[in-house]
Amino acid sequence: MSEKLVGAKRQTALKELHGWAEVLERDAIRKTYHFPDFPTAWGFMNQVALLTEKCGHHPEWFNDRGRVEIILFTREVDGVTGKDVELAHRIDQMAPAHDR
Amino acid sequence: MSEKLVGAKRQTALKELHGWAEVLERDAIRKTYHFPDFPTAWGFMNQVALLTEKCGHHPEWFNDRGRVEIILFTREVDGVTGKDVELAHRIDQMAPAHDR
Repeated sequence: MSEKLVGAKRQTALKELHGWAEVLERDAIRKTYHFPDFPTAWGFMNQVALLTEKCGHHPEWFNDRGRVEIILFTREVDGVTGKDVELAHRIDQMAPAHDR
Repeated sequence: MSEKLVGAKRQTALKELHGWAEVLERDAIRKTYHFPDFPTAWGFMNQVALLTEKCGHHPEWFNDRGRVEIILFTREVDGVTGKDVELAHRIDQMAPAHDR
């Protein structure tokens, strides 16, 4: 099982992510991606959907036309683990250049 | 342009919808759909995505594994219109029997 990231390990892992921030009211990380319109956002979400299904690690996520907000955390430990950090990196690779 | 639904007209329209409730803090309607897992939820969301793109009327929506929450309102009037009620009915037609 993945361990909850804490202390210096956590800070280092999060510092290597671009644009991901800690959620205030719970132990999770979030990022918002911006697209010109809904079809483009939906294309991105479909790619992410396949990736998360393959990983067996699903986000909570929200969409409003071109805006996609993703929240990652690991349910088993109710916190952020290496699985979330790795998934965040992989999602970023699918994102448009300005959101990477 | 669609007119904001108010008064008796609004009550009648909303009463004909099953499981849709008024959002407390703004003029919008919301419903939560439940699926056994993420792939099934995602299949439903893809159907809804195509429908909303065809209608040119997009929801705000949230997904957490098998849970899908949809919020409908009409941006042009910042409230609920006939367009939302019609879309709600059409989304319900795509939903599993227990959520219709």
